Amino acid sequence: MDKRVYNFAAGPSTLPLEVLTEARDEFLNFRGTGMSVTEISHRDKTYEEVVKDAEALVRELLNVPDDYCVIFVQGGASTQFAAVPLNLMHSGKADYIVTGNFAKKAWQEGQIYGEAKKIGDSSDKIYTYIPDVDSLGYTDGADYVHITSNNTIFGSRYDKFPVCKAPLVADMSSEIFSREINVADFGVIYAGAQKNLAPAGVTIVIAKRALIGNPLKICPTMLKWKVQDENGSLYNTPPAFSIYMADLVLRNLKKKGGVKAINEINVYKAGLLYDFIDNSKLYKNNVEKKYRSIMNVPFVTGSDELDAKFVAEAKKAGLVSLKGHRLVGGMRASIYNAMPVEGVQALIAFMKKFEVENG
Amino acid sequence: MDKRVYNFAAGPSTLPLEVLTEARDEFLNFRGTGMSVTEISHRDKTYEEVVKDAEALVRELLNVPDDYCVIFVQGGASTQFAAVPLNLMHSGKADYIVTGNFAKKAWQEGQIYGEAKKIGDSSDKIYTYIPDVDSLGYTDGADYVHITSNNTIFGSRYDKFPVCKAPLVADMSSEIFSREINVADFGVIYAGAQKNLAPAGVTIVIAKRALIGNPLKICPTMLKWKVQDENGSLYNTPPAFSIYMADLVLRNLKKKGGVKAINEINVYKAGLLYDFIDNSKLYKNNVEKKYRSIMNVPFVTGSDELDAKFVAEAKKAGLVSLKGHRLVGGMRASIYNAMPVEGVQALIAFMKKFEVENG
Repeated sequence: MDKRVYNFAAGPSTLPLEVLTEARDEFLNFRGTGMSVTEISHRDKTYEEVVKDAEALVRELLNVPDDYCVIFVQGGASTQFAAVPLNLMHSGKADYIVTGNFAKKAWQEGQIYGEAKKIGDSSDKIYTYIPDVDSLGYTDGADYVHITSNNTIFGSRYDKFPVCKAPLVADMSSEIFSREINVADFGVIYAGAQKNLAPAGVTIVIAKRALIGNPLKICPTMLKWKVQDENGSLYNTPPAFSIYMADLVLRNLKKKGGVKAINEINVYKAGLLYDFIDNSKLYKNNVEKKYRSIMNVPFVTGSDELDAKFVAEAKKAGLVSLKGHRLVGGMRASIYNAMPVEGVQALIAFMKKFEVENG
Repeated sequence: MDKRVYNFAAGPSTLPLEVLTEARDEFLNFRGTGMSVTEISHRDKTYEEVVKDAEALVRELLNVPDDYCVIFVQGGASTQFAAVPLNLMHSGKADYIVTGNFAKKAWQEGQIYGEAKKIGDSSDKIYTYIPDVDSLGYTDGADYVHITSNNTIFGSRYDKFPVCKAPLVADMSSEIFSREINVADFGVIYAGAQKNLAPAGVTIVIAKRALIGNPLKICPTMLKWKVQDENGSLYNTPPAFSIYMADLVLRNLKKKGGVKAINEINVYKAGLLYDFIDNSKLYKNNVEKKYRSIMNVPFVTGSDELDAKFVAEAKKAGLVSLKGHRLVGGMRASIYNAMPVEGVQALIAFMKKFEVENG
């Protein structure tokens, strides 16, 4: 296959073609250094500039307040499931709202380190909605309230965020940079990069510095946000290539008009797809409308056999990684920032054709 | 600068040009998938093959026994400094031999989790030797003995390894795949990839399965070697690009004849450089001969001013990242597997010229 496909994978996922081309073109000679960016020392000024630039762009694009750190770490959101309690759980209790698979994993990891209380849970309807955040029983004196702002597998997202006394901690892996947020409403935001930001291997943490000064004694040094902040994400050798790619993606996003502009496109893309699904007789999306994700769109035909046929034929048509997560079945189209409108249009055209042939 | 330089950085460091070219050529279309390897799902069969192939090559090239796991994780050796006690320190005591900066850091991290006893220490002579491993007071009933097999900053390495009752745990970051080892002599071997294996972002752990079944309760799930082993390094999204590059580097190493063959070249390269230094009047290497590393060769002129001039002029001559670590000063030439003989010859030629002009 020589043609570029439309890649609907949930992560790692499609990246802007301009960014990939730029990285390819300078892969053997990074900014005139005579080395690949995969070879250059992380202490080399030319590389250190990349890390600084990436941090500055995160601050600019998300309007991050000055009293928040922005750090690049390793291990994915799954490692942050432990880092959150290890950095914050001083009183030994925290609240978790469980709205999907990763929210549940974060909650389970929290239980290793203290009383991690599930104060909300949408598993009764297979995570197709978000509990009403205004009527939850937040724990008095909890160290934090943990949410997963967008649920990659189930295709739901918070339409508004909890307003609570304890700092709000949000895993934004599958939606960071896709819609405007007010960082000051959160204590900590973290996100694996492999959806909207970069190739897998780097995780971004944005944290209010006042909260992170005193990690638990048993916290591994590398998981201490404070240590990473004090060292400008260069405490040890960073995941250099992934940060470099994140920097290129963020530059590209800025050029495209930033988060506000990309959000408009995302809303438009998701709207096209949901409208088509809602008006079709074959396809169905089960998420309550006000909680529908604009990043991950699961849908089913109602027949496992037909779903499998859809995924196989779509692949032949250059629309790949549309198989839904095993917990949900069916199909899922992840339409992150880098998925062009044309990709969504091509998917809808294919869905129409498939419906005619199999409806 | 259009010409490829010789990069003597300690890590990230030079990679084989054939590997870089191959990665560049398929960067926009990974094995005919129509996607970049940085975009493809880690659950895609084409990508899963990469992880399996990389694991198989590690097993083949190091002759890893079947009762050892081989896993690819994130966070660098610095994260393993915590993972080692968190996976192994059941009785609460372990021995550490401190032969350099990273060995010391590993020992300090061990103290978070139990009685980490320093049973050997070569700081009295600025880490220019390895303590005699046959006369150390190993602790009865220790959970493990931790060593750093090659000291990147100080340029020393073990000529032979401790023989002890407790499992031997070795950080081999800066020498893995550079010389033959008998894996069965070790309980655990770990190594950050960014010297001999791949771009930064992936860490390899080779561990005897019988040792890793029962991590401490406080161990973050992501740091449990057992969990990573049970999931074939795909418990969560792996550092996909770095593993892909590791696979290409390992294929390249196999084509070149494997570890035995590359070790012969490494011994030859290091010999050229040490012989020249020992016979020069200007340059000096302070490490005891039998403990000299064949990967990292520090040297000084005896004058800080002249050292700085050397580093600056070498850079102009296309020999980069020769500045020594701030703990040692002077110069350091890291001559990993991917540094061609021609690079070492070019360095020696430059050193000669510089000595004539400044001696």
